[in-house]
Amino acid sequence: MSRAVVLLSGGLDSATALAVAREEGYETYALSVRYGQRHEAELEAAARVAAALGAERHLVVGVDLGAIGGSALTGEIEVPKDVPLAEIGAEIPVTYVPARNTVFLSLALGWAEVLDAEDVFLGVTAVDYSGYPDCRPEYIRAYEAMANLATKAAVEGRQRLRIHTPLIELDKAAIIRLGTGLGVDYGLTSSCYDPAADGSPCGRCDACLLRREGFRQAGLEDPLRYPG
Amino acid sequence: MSRAVVLLSGGLDSATALAVAREEGYETYALSVRYGQRHEAELEAAARVAAALGAERHLVVGVDLGAIGGSALTGEIEVPKDVPLAEIGAEIPVTYVPARNTVFLSLALGWAEVLDAEDVFLGVTAVDYSGYPDCRPEYIRAYEAMANLATKAAVEGRQRLRIHTPLIELDKAAIIRLGTGLGVDYGLTSSCYDPAADGSPCGRCDACLLRREGFRQAGLEDPLRYPG
Repeated sequence: MSRAVVLLSGGLDSATALAVAREEGYETYALSVRYGQRHEAELEAAARVAAALGAERHLVVGVDLGAIGGSALTGEIEVPKDVPLAEIGAEIPVTYVPARNTVFLSLALGWAEVLDAEDVFLGVTAVDYSGYPDCRPEYIRAYEAMANLATKAAVEGRQRLRIHTPLIELDKAAIIRLGTGLGVDYGLTSSCYDPAADGSPCGRCDACLLRREGFRQAGLEDPLRYPG
Repeated sequence: MSRAVVLLSGGLDSATALAVAREEGYETYALSVRYGQRHEAELEAAARVAAALGAERHLVVGVDLGAIGGSALTGEIEVPKDVPLAEIGAEIPVTYVPARNTVFLSLALGWAEVLDAEDVFLGVTAVDYSGYPDCRPEYIRAYEAMANLATKAAVEGRQRLRIHTPLIELDKAAIIRLGTGLGVDYGLTSSCYDPAADGSPCGRCDACLLRREGFRQAGLEDPLRYPG
Protein backbone atom coordinates (compact mmCIF):
# COMPACT_ATOMS: atom_id res chain seq x y z
CA MET A 1 0.00 0.00 0.00
CA SER A 2 1.57 3.29 -1.08
CA ARG A 3 1.73 6.14 1.37
CA ALA A 4 0.46 9.62 0.58
CA VAL A 5 0.88 12.82 2.55
CA VAL A 6 -2.35 14.83 2.51
CA LEU A 7 -2.31 18.49 3.51
CA LEU A 8 -5.34 18.78 5.77
CA SER A 9 -6.45 22.19 6.93
CA GLY A 10 -9.66 20.90 8.43
CA GLY A 11 -11.76 22.67 5.82
CA LEU A 12 -14.14 21.27 3.28
CA ASP A 13 -11.69 21.06 0.38
CA SER A 14 -8.85 19.28 2.14
CA ALA A 15 -11.25 16.83 3.78
CA THR A 16 -12.47 15.94 0.31
CA ALA A 17 -8.89 15.57 -0.95
CA LEU A 18 -8.19 13.17 1.92
CA ALA A 19 -11.25 11.12 0.99
CA VAL A 20 -10.06 10.99 -2.64
CA ALA A 21 -6.60 9.80 -1.59
CA ARG A 22 -8.17 7.04 0.50
CA GLU A 23 -10.50 6.10 -2.36
CA GLU A 24 -7.47 5.82 -4.66
CA GLY A 25 -5.98 3.25 -2.32
CA TYR A 26 -3.31 5.23 -0.49
CA GLU A 27 -2.39 4.84 3.14
CA THR A 28 -2.85 8.44 4.18
CA TYR A 29 -0.67 10.65 6.39
CA ALA A 30 -2.52 13.85 7.20
CA LEU A 31 -0.43 16.97 7.76
CA SER A 32 -1.83 20.12 9.36
CA VAL A 33 0.02 23.32 10.08
CA ARG A 34 -0.38 25.57 13.09
CA TYR A 35 0.81 28.79 11.44
CA GLY A 36 -0.63 31.43 13.67
CA GLN A 37 -4.02 31.37 11.96
CA ARG A 38 -6.74 33.15 13.88
CA HIS A 39 -9.02 30.27 13.01
CA GLU A 40 -7.24 27.59 14.99
CA ALA A 41 -10.56 25.80 15.33
CA GLU A 42 -9.71 24.30 11.95
CA LEU A 43 -6.94 22.25 13.59
CA GLU A 44 -9.47 20.53 15.83
CA ALA A 45 -11.59 19.94 12.75
CA ALA A 46 -8.54 18.45 11.01
CA ALA A 47 -8.04 15.98 13.86
CA ARG A 48 -11.70 14.93 13.66
CA VAL A 49 -11.58 14.54 9.88
CA ALA A 50 -8.30 12.58 9.95
CA ALA A 51 -9.77 10.14 12.46
CA ALA A 52 -13.09 9.80 10.63
CA LEU A 53 -11.40 9.14 7.29
CA GLY A 54 -8.93 6.61 8.68
CA ALA A 55 -5.65 8.49 8.28
CA GLU A 56 -2.72 6.37 9.47
CA ARG A 57 -1.29 9.42 11.25
CA HIS A 58 -2.18 13.06 11.78
CA LEU A 59 0.78 15.37 12.33
CA VAL A 60 0.48 19.02 13.29
CA VAL A 61 3.60 21.06 12.56
CA GLY A 62 4.05 24.55 13.95
CA VAL A 63 5.33 27.37 11.71
CA ASP A 64 5.27 30.94 12.89
CA LEU A 65 3.99 32.67 9.76
CA GLY A 66 2.54 35.35 12.02
CA ALA A 67 6.10 36.62 12.52
CA ILE A 68 6.25 37.31 8.80
CA GLY A 69 2.85 38.97 8.68
CA GLY A 70 1.12 40.34 5.63
CA SER A 71 -2.23 38.60 6.04
CA ALA A 72 -5.63 39.04 7.60
CA LEU A 73 -5.46 35.40 8.65
CA THR A 74 -2.43 35.84 10.88
CA GLY A 75 -2.31 39.54 11.63
CA GLU A 76 -4.23 42.51 12.78
CA ILE A 77 -6.06 43.15 9.52
CA GLU A 78 -9.81 42.53 9.77
CA VAL A 79 -11.29 39.54 7.96
CA PRO A 80 -13.71 40.99 5.37
CA LYS A 81 -17.39 40.15 5.81
CA ASP A 82 -20.41 40.12 3.49
CA VAL A 83 -18.42 40.55 0.27
CA PRO A 84 -20.83 39.94 -2.66
CA LEU A 85 -20.23 36.48 -4.14
CA ALA A 86 -19.44 37.88 -7.58
CA GLU A 87 -16.57 39.88 -6.11
CA ILE A 88 -14.94 37.05 -4.14
CA GLY A 89 -11.83 35.96 -5.99
CA ALA A 90 -11.98 38.85 -8.44
CA GLU A 91 -8.78 40.03 -6.86
CA ILE A 92 -6.36 38.51 -4.39
CA PRO A 93 -7.95 39.02 -0.97
CA VAL A 94 -6.34 40.24 2.27
CA THR A 95 -6.79 36.71 3.58
CA TYR A 96 -4.00 35.67 1.22
CA VAL A 97 -1.05 34.44 3.32
CA PRO A 98 2.32 35.13 1.66
CA ALA A 99 3.85 31.90 0.35
CA ARG A 100 1.51 29.74 2.42
CA ASN A 101 1.08 26.82 0.05
CA THR A 102 4.80 26.97 -0.74
CA VAL A 103 5.60 26.61 2.94
CA PHE A 104 2.98 23.87 3.44
CA LEU A 105 4.14 21.88 0.42
CA SER A 106 7.73 22.15 1.66
CA LEU A 107 6.75 20.59 4.98
CA ALA A 108 4.84 17.90 3.09
CA LEU A 109 7.90 17.28 0.95
CA GLY A 110 10.08 16.78 4.03
CA TRP A 111 7.60 14.42 5.66
CA ALA A 112 7.12 12.51 2.40
CA GLU A 113 10.86 11.94 2.26
CA VAL A 114 10.94 10.60 5.81
CA LEU A 115 7.93 8.35 5.10
CA ASP A 116 9.26 7.10 1.74
CA ALA A 117 6.11 8.51 0.16
CA GLU A 118 5.98 9.77 -3.41
CA ASP A 119 2.52 11.26 -3.39
CA VAL A 120 1.24 14.48 -1.88
CA PHE A 121 -2.40 15.53 -2.03
CA LEU A 122 -3.39 19.19 -1.92
CA GLY A 123 -7.02 20.29 -1.95
CA VAL A 124 -6.59 23.49 -3.94
CA THR A 125 -9.12 24.64 -6.46
CA ALA A 126 -8.43 27.13 -9.19
CA VAL A 127 -12.13 27.89 -9.60
CA ASP A 128 -13.49 29.61 -6.51
CA TYR A 129 -10.17 31.03 -5.37
CA SER A 130 -8.73 32.07 -8.68
CA GLY A 131 -7.24 34.99 -6.78
CA TYR A 132 -4.73 32.83 -4.92
CA PRO A 133 -1.64 32.45 -7.12
CA ASP A 134 -0.44 29.33 -5.33
CA CYS A 135 -3.61 27.43 -6.30
CA ARG A 136 -2.95 27.49 -10.05
CA PRO A 137 -1.90 24.43 -12.11
CA GLU A 138 1.25 26.11 -13.47
CA TYR A 139 2.40 26.79 -9.93
CA ILE A 140 1.79 23.17 -8.89
CA ARG A 141 3.80 21.84 -11.86
CA ALA A 142 6.69 24.20 -11.12
CA TYR A 143 6.65 23.12 -7.49
CA GLU A 144 6.79 19.47 -8.52
CA ALA A 145 9.76 20.14 -10.82
CA MET A 146 11.61 21.89 -8.00
CA ALA A 147 10.75 19.18 -5.47
CA ASN A 148 12.23 16.49 -7.67
CA LEU A 149 15.58 18.26 -7.46
CA ALA A 150 15.34 19.00 -3.75
CA THR A 151 15.52 15.82 -1.77
CA LYS A 152 18.10 13.19 -1.01
CA ALA A 153 15.57 10.54 -1.99
CA ALA A 154 14.94 12.17 -5.38
CA VAL A 155 18.65 12.58 -6.08
CA GLU A 156 19.28 8.96 -5.19
CA GLY A 157 16.48 7.89 -7.51
CA ARG A 158 14.28 6.51 -4.74
CA GLN A 159 11.58 9.17 -4.98
CA ARG A 160 9.61 10.76 -7.78
CA LEU A 161 7.27 13.19 -6.15
CA ARG A 162 3.82 13.77 -7.55
CA ILE A 163 1.50 16.50 -6.29
CA HIS A 164 -2.12 15.47 -6.70
CA THR A 165 -4.72 18.22 -6.91
CA PRO A 166 -7.94 16.29 -7.43
CA LEU A 167 -10.16 19.34 -6.87
CA ILE A 168 -8.31 21.85 -9.00
CA GLU A 169 -10.96 22.01 -11.73
CA LEU A 170 -13.98 21.64 -9.47
CA ASP A 171 -16.20 24.35 -8.09
CA LYS A 172 -17.47 24.20 -4.53
CA ALA A 173 -20.71 22.45 -5.39
CA ALA A 174 -18.86 19.76 -7.34
CA ILE A 175 -16.42 19.26 -4.48
CA ILE A 176 -19.30 18.84 -2.03
CA ARG A 177 -21.01 16.31 -4.28
CA LEU A 178 -17.74 14.40 -4.72
CA GLY A 179 -17.00 14.29 -1.00
CA THR A 180 -20.56 13.39 -0.07
CA GLY A 181 -20.32 10.43 -2.42
CA LEU A 182 -17.10 9.38 -0.71
CA GLY A 183 -18.67 9.54 2.74
CA VAL A 184 -17.17 12.77 4.02
CA ASP A 185 -19.06 14.13 7.02
CA TYR A 186 -18.85 17.87 6.38
CA GLY A 187 -20.24 18.46 9.85
CA LEU A 188 -16.73 17.66 11.11
CA THR A 189 -15.05 20.31 8.97
CA SER A 190 -14.42 23.99 9.63
CA SER A 191 -14.14 26.53 6.82
CA CYS A 192 -14.64 29.85 8.60
CA TYR A 193 -11.83 32.43 8.67
CA ASP A 194 -13.16 34.08 11.79
CA PRO A 195 -15.00 31.54 13.96
CA ALA A 196 -16.42 32.18 17.42
CA ALA A 197 -14.52 30.96 20.47
CA ASP A 198 -16.47 27.69 20.40
CA GLY A 199 -15.42 27.14 16.77
CA SER A 200 -18.82 27.91 15.24
CA PRO A 201 -18.70 29.70 11.88
CA CYS A 202 -19.42 33.41 11.35
CA GLY A 203 -21.38 32.74 8.17
CA ARG A 204 -20.22 35.99 6.57
CA CYS A 205 -16.52 35.73 5.66
CA ASP A 206 -15.53 34.74 2.11
CA ALA A 207 -14.95 31.13 3.14
CA CYS A 208 -18.38 30.83 4.78
CA LEU A 209 -20.14 32.54 1.89
CA LEU A 210 -18.53 30.29 -0.72
CA ARG A 211 -19.27 27.22 1.34
CA ARG A 212 -22.93 28.10 1.86
CA GLU A 213 -23.38 28.89 -1.82
CA GLY A 214 -21.67 25.59 -2.69
CA PHE A 215 -24.13 23.58 -0.61
CA ARG A 216 -27.02 25.56 -2.08
CA GLN A 217 -25.85 24.85 -5.64
CA ALA A 218 -25.22 21.19 -4.82
CA GLY A 219 -28.76 20.93 -3.48
CA LEU A 220 -27.46 19.56 -0.18
CA GLU A 221 -27.80 20.80 3.36
CA ASP A 222 -24.71 22.12 5.14
CA PRO A 223 -24.58 20.27 8.46
CA LEU A 224 -22.97 23.32 10.12
CA ARG A 225 -25.22 25.83 11.88
CA TYR A 226 -24.75 29.52 11.07
CA PRO A 227 -25.80 32.47 13.22
CA GLY A 228 -28.95 34.41 12.39
CA MET B 1 18.04 51.21 -1.70
CA SER B 2 16.73 47.76 -2.61
CA ARG B 3 15.89 45.32 0.11
CA ALA B 4 17.23 41.78 0.23
CA VAL B 5 16.25 38.91 2.49
CA VAL B 6 19.34 37.00 3.60
CA LEU B 7 18.98 33.54 5.12
CA LEU B 8 21.31 33.66 8.10
CA SER B 9 22.02 30.47 10.03
CA GLY B 10 24.77 32.08 12.07
CA GLY B 11 27.43 29.96 10.41
CA LEU B 12 30.41 31.00 8.38
CA ASP B 13 28.81 30.71 4.95
CA SER B 14 25.64 32.66 5.62
CA ALA B 15 27.58 35.41 7.43
CA THR B 16 29.67 35.78 4.28
CA ALA B 17 26.54 35.87 2.11
CA LEU B 18 25.18 38.67 4.30
CA ALA B 19 28.42 40.62 3.87
CA VAL B 20 28.20 40.15 0.08
CA ALA B 21 24.61 41.43 0.02
CA ARG B 22 25.65 44.50 1.98
CA GLU B 23 28.66 45.04 -0.29
CA GLU B 24 26.34 44.89 -3.31
CA GLY B 25 24.34 47.76 -1.86
CA TYR B 26 21.24 46.02 -0.50
CA GLU B 27 19.44 46.96 2.65
CA THR B 28 19.54 43.57 4.33
CA TYR B 29 16.82 41.68 6.22
CA ALA B 30 18.32 38.70 7.98
CA LEU B 31 16.10 35.66 8.45
CA SER B 32 16.97 32.83 10.82
CA VAL B 33 14.94 29.74 11.53
CA ARG B 34 14.51 27.97 14.85
CA TYR B 35 13.71 24.53 13.47
CA GLY B 36 14.50 22.29 16.40
CA GLN B 37 18.22 22.14 15.61
CA ARG B 38 20.30 20.75 18.45
CA HIS B 39 22.81 23.50 17.74
CA GLU B 40 20.61 26.42 18.74
CA ALA B 41 23.78 28.31 19.65
CA GLU B 42 23.84 29.27 15.97
CA LEU B 43 20.78 31.48 16.51
CA GLU B 44 22.68 33.58 19.03
CA ALA B 45 25.53 33.73 16.55
CA ALA B 46 23.07 34.88 13.87
CA ALA B 47 21.90 37.73 16.07
CA ARG B 48 25.50 38.84 16.68
CA VAL B 49 26.36 38.62 12.98
CA ALA B 50 23.23 40.49 11.88
CA ALA B 51 24.04 43.32 14.29
CA ALA B 52 27.73 43.46 13.32
CA LEU B 53 26.97 43.54 9.60
CA GLY B 54 24.29 46.19 9.90
CA ALA B 55 21.18 44.22 8.98
CA GLU B 56 18.10 46.42 9.02
CA ARG B 57 16.19 43.68 10.82
CA HIS B 58 16.83 40.18 12.13
CA LEU B 59 13.78 37.93 12.24
CA VAL B 60 13.76 34.47 13.81
CA VAL B 61 10.89 32.27 12.63
CA GLY B 62 10.04 29.02 14.39
CA VAL B 63 9.31 25.87 12.35
CA ASP B 64 8.99 22.52 14.05
CA LEU B 65 11.01 20.36 11.66
CA GLY B 66 11.78 18.08 14.60
CA ALA B 67 8.17 16.85 14.37
CA ILE B 68 8.98 15.58 10.88
CA GLY B 69 12.27 13.98 11.90
CA GLY B 70 14.70 12.18 9.66
CA SER B 71 17.87 14.06 10.62
CA ALA B 72 20.73 13.93 13.07
CA LEU B 73 20.38 17.69 13.45
CA THR B 74 16.86 17.53 14.87
CA GLY B 75 16.47 13.98 16.12
CA GLU B 76 17.98 11.29 18.18
CA ILE B 77 20.59 10.18 15.64
CA GLU B 78 24.16 10.92 16.74
CA VAL B 79 26.11 13.63 14.95
CA PRO B 80 29.10 11.85 13.31
CA LYS B 81 32.55 12.84 14.55
CA ASP B 82 36.06 12.57 13.12
CA VAL B 83 34.95 11.61 9.61
CA PRO B 84 38.03 11.78 7.32
CA LEU B 85 37.91 14.97 5.23
CA ALA B 86 37.99 13.03 1.96
CA GLU B 87 34.79 11.24 2.94
CA ILE B 88 32.78 14.29 3.97
CA GLY B 89 30.28 15.03 1.21
CA ALA B 90 31.00 11.79 -0.62
CA GLU B 91 27.48 10.78 0.24
CA ILE B 92 24.53 12.59 1.73
CA PRO B 93 25.19 12.69 5.49
CA VAL B 94 22.78 11.95 8.36
CA THR B 95 22.92 15.65 9.17
CA TYR B 96 20.85 16.26 6.04
CA VAL B 97 17.49 17.74 7.09
CA PRO B 98 14.64 16.74 4.75
CA ALA B 99 13.57 19.69 2.61
CA ARG B 100 15.35 22.18 4.86
CA ASN B 101 16.44 24.69 2.24
CA THR B 102 13.05 24.36 0.55
CA VAL B 103 11.31 25.27 3.81
CA PHE B 104 13.77 28.10 4.53
CA LEU B 105 13.47 29.58 1.04
CA SER B 106 9.69 29.42 1.35
CA LEU B 107 9.81 31.51 4.51
CA ALA B 108 12.21 33.91 2.79
CA LEU B 109 9.79 34.13 -0.13
CA GLY B 110 6.93 35.05 2.16
CA TRP B 111 8.94 37.69 3.99
CA ALA B 112 10.28 39.08 0.70
CA GLU B 113 6.71 39.55 -0.47
CA VAL B 114 5.75 41.42 2.70
CA LEU B 115 8.89 43.59 2.43
CA ASP B 116 8.49 44.27 -1.31
CA ALA B 117 11.91 42.70 -1.80
CA GLU B 118 12.93 40.91 -4.99
CA ASP B 119 16.24 39.50 -3.83
CA VAL B 120 17.01 36.57 -1.56
CA PHE B 121 20.55 35.59 -0.60
CA LEU B 122 21.40 32.02 0.32
CA GLY B 123 24.90 31.02 1.39
CA VAL B 124 24.94 27.54 -0.11
CA THR B 125 28.01 26.06 -1.68
CA ALA B 126 28.00 23.16 -4.09
CA VAL B 127 31.65 22.45 -3.42
CA ASP B 128 32.14 21.23 0.15
CA TYR B 129 28.61 19.91 0.57
CA SER B 130 28.04 18.34 -2.80
CA GLY B 131 26.07 15.73 -0.90
CA TYR B 132 23.22 18.11 -0.07
CA PRO B 133 20.81 18.09 -3.02
CA ASP B 134 19.26 21.43 -2.10
CA CYS B 135 22.58 23.21 -2.52
CA ARG B 136 22.91 22.57 -6.25
CA PRO B 137 22.50 25.24 -8.96
CA GLU B 138 19.77 23.31 -10.81
CA TYR B 139 17.73 23.16 -7.62
CA ILE B 140 18.12 26.89 -7.04
CA ARG B 141 16.98 27.72 -10.59
CA ALA B 142 13.95 25.43 -10.26
CA TYR B 143 13.07 27.08 -6.97
CA GLU B 144 13.26 30.51 -8.55
CA ALA B 145 10.97 29.44 -11.40
CA MET B 146 8.42 28.12 -8.91
CA ALA B 147 8.67 31.19 -6.70
CA ASN B 148 7.85 33.48 -9.59
CA LEU B 149 4.52 31.69 -9.97
CA ALA B 150 3.79 31.53 -6.25
CA THR B 151 3.19 35.00 -4.91
CA LYS B 152 0.56 37.66 -5.25
CA ALA B 153 3.31 40.17 -5.97
CA ALA B 154 4.74 38.05 -8.79
CA VAL B 155 1.34 37.46 -10.35
CA GLU B 156 0.57 41.16 -10.20
CA GLY B 157 3.90 41.92 -11.87
CA ARG B 158 5.34 43.74 -8.87
CA GLN B 159 7.96 41.14 -8.01
CA ARG B 160 10.54 39.18 -9.95
CA LEU B 161 12.31 37.07 -7.38
CA ARG B 162 16.00 36.35 -7.74
CA ILE B 163 17.86 33.90 -5.51
CA HIS B 164 21.48 34.92 -5.14
CA THR B 165 24.00 32.22 -4.25
CA PRO B 166 27.29 34.14 -4.22
CA LEU B 167 29.22 31.26 -2.64
CA ILE B 168 27.94 28.41 -4.76
CA GLU B 169 31.19 27.88 -6.66
CA LEU B 170 33.55 28.66 -3.78
CA ASP B 171 35.28 26.23 -1.46
CA LYS B 172 35.56 26.97 2.25
CA ALA B 173 38.97 28.64 1.99
CA ALA B 174 37.74 30.96 -0.78
CA ILE B 175 34.64 31.84 1.26
CA ILE B 176 36.80 32.69 4.27
CA ARG B 177 39.08 34.89 2.17
CA LEU B 178 36.09 36.63 0.60
CA GLY B 179 34.42 37.30 3.94
CA THR B 180 37.63 38.40 5.61
CA GLY B 181 38.07 40.94 2.83
CA LEU B 182 34.53 42.19 3.48
CA GLY B 183 35.16 42.61 7.20
CA VAL B 184 33.30 39.58 8.54
CA ASP B 185 34.33 38.74 12.09
CA TYR B 186 34.24 34.94 12.03
CA GLY B 187 34.67 34.92 15.77
CA LEU B 188 30.97 35.84 15.95
CA THR B 189 29.84 32.85 13.88
CA SER B 190 28.99 29.31 14.94
CA SER B 191 29.40 26.36 12.58
CA CYS B 192 29.38 23.37 14.93
CA TYR B 193 26.58 20.78 14.64
CA ASP B 194 27.04 19.66 18.24
CA PRO B 195 28.30 22.54 20.37
CA ALA B 196 28.78 22.48 24.14
CA ALA B 197 26.18 24.12 26.37
CA ASP B 198 28.15 27.38 26.29
CA GLY B 199 28.10 27.37 22.47
CA SER B 200 31.74 26.42 22.01
CA PRO B 201 32.45 24.11 19.06
CA CYS B 202 33.21 20.39 19.33
CA GLY B 203 35.92 20.61 16.69
CA ARG B 204 35.15 17.11 15.39
CA CYS B 205 31.82 17.16 13.51
CA ASP B 206 31.81 17.54 9.73
CA ALA B 207 31.05 21.26 9.99
CA CYS B 208 33.93 21.91 12.39
CA LEU B 209 36.35 19.79 10.35
CA LEU B 210 35.51 21.57 7.09
CA ARG B 211 35.76 24.95 8.77
CA ARG B 212 39.13 24.23 10.35
CA GLU B 213 40.50 22.88 7.08
CA GLY B 214 39.15 25.97 5.30
CA PHE B 215 41.00 28.34 7.59
CA ARG B 216 44.15 26.21 7.25
CA GLN B 217 43.95 26.34 3.45
CA ALA B 218 43.22 30.06 3.49
CA GLY B 219 46.29 30.62 5.63
CA LEU B 220 44.20 32.43 8.23
CA GLU B 221 43.59 31.78 11.88
CA ASP B 222 40.11 30.68 13.00
CA PRO B 223 39.17 33.03 15.84
CA LEU B 224 37.14 30.24 17.49
CA ARG B 225 38.83 28.08 20.12
CA TYR B 226 38.49 24.31 19.82
CA PRO B 227 38.92 21.74 22.61
CA GLY B 228 42.15 19.78 22.90
